[in-house]
Amino acid sequence: MGLVVQKYGGSSVADAEGIKRVAKRVVEAKKNGHQVVVVVSAMGDTTDELIDLAAQVSPIPAGREFDMLLTAGERISMALLAMAIKNLGHEAQSFTGSQAGVITDSVHNKARIIDVTPGRIQQSVDAGNIAIVAGFQGVSQDKKDITTLGRGGSDTTAVALAAALDAEVCEIYTDVDGVFTADPRVVKKARKIDWISFEDMLELASSGSKVLLHRCVEYARRYNIPIHVRSSFSGLKGTWVSNEPQGDQPMEQAIISGVAHDTSEAKVTVVGVPDKPGEAATIFRAIADADINIDMVVQNVSAASTGLTDISFTLPKTEGHKAIEALEKTKTRVGFDSLRYDDQIAKISLVGAGMKTNPGVTATFFEALSNAGVNIELISTSEIRISVVTRADDVNEAVRAVHTAFGLDSESDEAVVYGGTGR
Amino acid sequence: MGLVVQKYGGSSVADAEGIKRVAKRVVEAKKNGHQVVVVVSAMGDTTDELIDLAAQVSPIPAGREFDMLLTAGERISMALLAMAIKNLGHEAQSFTGSQAGVITDSVHNKARIIDVTPGRIQQSVDAGNIAIVAGFQGVSQDKKDITTLGRGGSDTTAVALAAALDAEVCEIYTDVDGVFTADPRVVKKARKIDWISFEDMLELASSGSKVLLHRCVEYARRYNIPIHVRSSFSGLKGTWVSNEPQGDQPMEQAIISGVAHDTSEAKVTVVGVPDKPGEAATIFRAIADADINIDMVVQNVSAASTGLTDISFTLPKTEGHKAIEALEKTKTRVGFDSLRYDDQIAKISLVGAGMKTNPGVTATFFEALSNAGVNIELISTSEIRISVVTRADDVNEAVRAVHTAFGLDSESDEAVVYGGTGR
Repeated sequence: MGLVVQKYGGSSVADAEGIKRVAKRVVEAKKNGHQVVVVVSAMGDTTDELIDLAAQVSPIPAGREFDMLLTAGERISMALLAMAIKNLGHEAQSFTGSQAGVITDSVHNKARIIDVTPGRIQQSVDAGNIAIVAGFQGVSQDKKDITTLGRGGSDTTAVALAAALDAEVCEIYTDVDGVFTADPRVVKKARKIDWISFEDMLELASSGSKVLLHRCVEYARRYNIPIHVRSSFSGLKGTWVSNEPQGDQPMEQAIISGVAHDTSEAKVTVVGVPDKPGEAATIFRAIADADINIDMVVQNVSAASTGLTDISFTLPKTEGHKAIEALEKTKTRVGFDSLRYDDQIAKISLVGAGMKTNPGVTATFFEALSNAGVNIELISTSEIRISVVTRADDVNEAVRAVHTAFGLDSESDEAVVYGGTGR
Repeated sequence: MGLVVQKYGGSSVADAEGIKRVAKRVVEAKKNGHQVVVVVSAMGDTTDELIDLAAQVSPIPAGREFDMLLTAGERISMALLAMAIKNLGHEAQSFTGSQAGVITDSVHNKARIIDVTPGRIQQSVDAGNIAIVAGFQGVSQDKKDITTLGRGGSDTTAVALAAALDAEVCEIYTDVDGVFTADPRVVKKARKIDWISFEDMLELASSGSKVLLHRCVEYARRYNIPIHVRSSFSGLKGTWVSNEPQGDQPMEQAIISGVAHDTSEAKVTVVGVPDKPGEAATIFRAIADADINIDMVVQNVSAASTGLTDISFTLPKTEGHKAIEALEKTKTRVGFDSLRYDDQIAKISLVGAGMKTNPGVTATFFEALSNAGVNIELISTSEIRISVVTRADDVNEAVRAVHTAFGLDSESDEAVVYGGTGR
C-alpha cells in the first residue's frame, strides 16, 4: 500500500465535531495500511473572520502581513486535527507550509508554488506518524517570508505534496459527493460522475463548476496525480479525475461530461467600433493593462453599410467598474460609439471530449435551449466545450433543459442519439 | 537614540481599536528617533478560546501540537498590528518566534529560552522598519519544532530580545499604571512605585504581585536590562525596574517597597512527626517526586513531653490533592499522626531591601496585624522580605493595615520611624 494524500476543506473541519469525524476517517486510511499525509484548510469561517479583523485595522491590508495573518487559520485546524488523531491512539504531527517544504515565489496573497521539498513529511510518515500539513500556505524562496496561495490554495497544496511524495492518489474531501453532471442545487436529477478526464474537468472548472479549481486540476494533470473528490460526510466513493480510468471505473468516458453554469460574470459590449486593423488590440490592451482577466470574446461581422462592428466580452462582475473606466479612456483613440454593460447574464457550458467525434451536439444543445424558450446572446466554443450567454433569469431552466436533452438525468439510462450534420 | 523593545499584553490588543491605539504609541516611539521592536501577545481571550477548542477534541492536549495551536494567537495579533502601523504610514514587518531567532529547549508548553539570534530583527530595524515579534513562542534547537514559553512567556520574550539586541530599555505595557505598593483593588491608597530594584521586584513577584513574573525579572537582572512597566492606556510614566535609579528617578529606594498578598496557596500540616533525623527529608522527597512546588516551610520546636513536632508548608491550591495523596503513602514510614489541609489561607508579604538595615520592621509589621485583629499562623522571612500566613477572610484588612503602618498610603509623605530592637 502506498502513500495517500487527503485534503479536508473548511466545511469538513468547521467545529470540534467535524475535526473528530475527520480524525476517524484519517485513522481508517492509516489502518488500511496506507502512509497518510493530510492537508487541511482553516476551520469554517476562520479566514473570513480574519479578513474582517484586517479590514477593521487597515483599509488596504498589506501583502506580507496579510499572509502572516491568514496562515493562523490552518495552524489552528491542523494542530487540533493532530490532537484528535492522537486521542484515537495514533501518532500525528502537524507541519506549517514552510516546515512541509512548500516553496513559493514572493507574490503575497496569491503565491505560486515553485518547488516542494517534503523531507520532514517523508521522515514523519516513515517513522509511522500521520503527517498533517497546513494547506494554502508556503514560504518564499528568496525572503523566507510566509506566503499564501490564493483561491483554491489548499487543493493545490494537496496535489503538489502528492506529486512530490509520489502518492498513489490525492483525495479531496468536500461537502458534496463528488463532481456532478450539473449543479445538483439546480438540477435535481444531476448524476455523480464516477470518472472524468483531466481535460473535461479543466473545462468544467473554468466554466463555473466549483468543486475543483482549474489551478489544482492543471497541477494534477502535469504530474499525473489521480484526484479522488469525495464527501467527508457520506464515505461514499466520489469522482475520480485522472488520465485513464482505473479499476472498476467505466472504460469509456461519456460523450458529454456535464453542464456547467456561471452567474458571476458580466458582459461588456463596445458598440460601433471601426472595422479596421488595430482597434481590437487597443481595446484589449487597455483591459490587460488594468489587470483584468476576461473570459469569452465575440466579434460580429461588421455591417457592410456602416463599416462598424460590435465587440463583446465577458468578465467577472467584480471587475466591471474597472473595465468601463479603462475603456472610456480609449474612446477617442478607438472612436467607438458607446459602451454597454450588462451584469444580468449567465453562461451555460456543455463539456465533453466526446463532442469532437459526435456530430450534432451543438444542434441538440441549441434546440434544447430554444424549446425551453431561452434566447442565446453570445456563443463561444473550444474543442470540447460549447458556451452560450443567456439572461441570468433563464439560467436554471436552461441548465435543466440541456441536462435532460443529453440524457444526463439520473433516471434515464438511454444514450442520446445525435443526428444532423456535424456540430 | 537607541533601540527600544516594547511589549503589549493581550488586554492592550484585545480588539481592532486596541490594536490601532497600540500602533499609534509604537509609531510615536519611532518618531522620537528610536529603533523599535514590538513584542505582542495574543488578542484578549484568543488563547483561552484555543485551549477550549483543544479540550473539545482531546482530553489530554499533546505538547507539540498544543504549542502549534496556541502560537496561532500571536500570529494574528502581530500581523494586525503590522497592518495598523503601515496604515499610519510607517513600515512594519512581523516575525514569528522562530523567525526572530528565539531558540528554546524541547519542553513543550513551558520551554526555556536557550539562545536568541535576532539577525532578521536587527536587519529589519536597520532597514527602517518597526519589527513586530510574536511573544510567548520559539523554536526548539534540536527538532525545529514550534514551542511556547508558558506563563509570562511574552514578557520573557521581550526581555530576552532586549538583551540580545542590546536595547536601552524593555517597556512592558499593561492595563495598570505600573507596580504599586500594594494591589490597588485592595488598598485604595496604594502608590505607584517610580523605581524599584530587581531584588525587591523579584521578592514582590514571588509573593503574589502579578504585574511582572519572577522569570522575566530574573532574566532582566541577569542581563541588566532596565524594565519600564507602564500603561498602554494612560501614557503616564510607570515603574522602572533596574539595578540603579536613572535620570530623575529617586536616588534612594524606599525602606519598604510594598506589601504583596497571595490567596492562591493552601497550607498542609503534617501533625505528630517524630523529631529525629531524616523525617523531614522523607516528607519533602515525596512532595518533590510528585513534582509539586512548595513555598513556605515551617517546623515548630518539638514538645519536650512527646518528642513529636508539626511540619507545615504552603503550596498552590491546585496541587493540594496531589500532595495529600503523596504524603498518605509515606505515613507508615514516617510515622506521623495525621495530615491537615487548609485552603482558606492568605499570605501577606512585606518587601524592601531597607529592612536589612532598619531595625523594628518586623515589630511594626506584627503590631499592625495585631491592632487589626489579624491572627498570624505561620511566619517566614528572607533578607528583604517577611511573610505571614493568615485567614483568607482577613487578607484585605491585613494588607491595608500594614500598608498604612509603613507610611505607604498615598496621602502621607511622612517616613515611618522604626523603634525597637532590631528585627
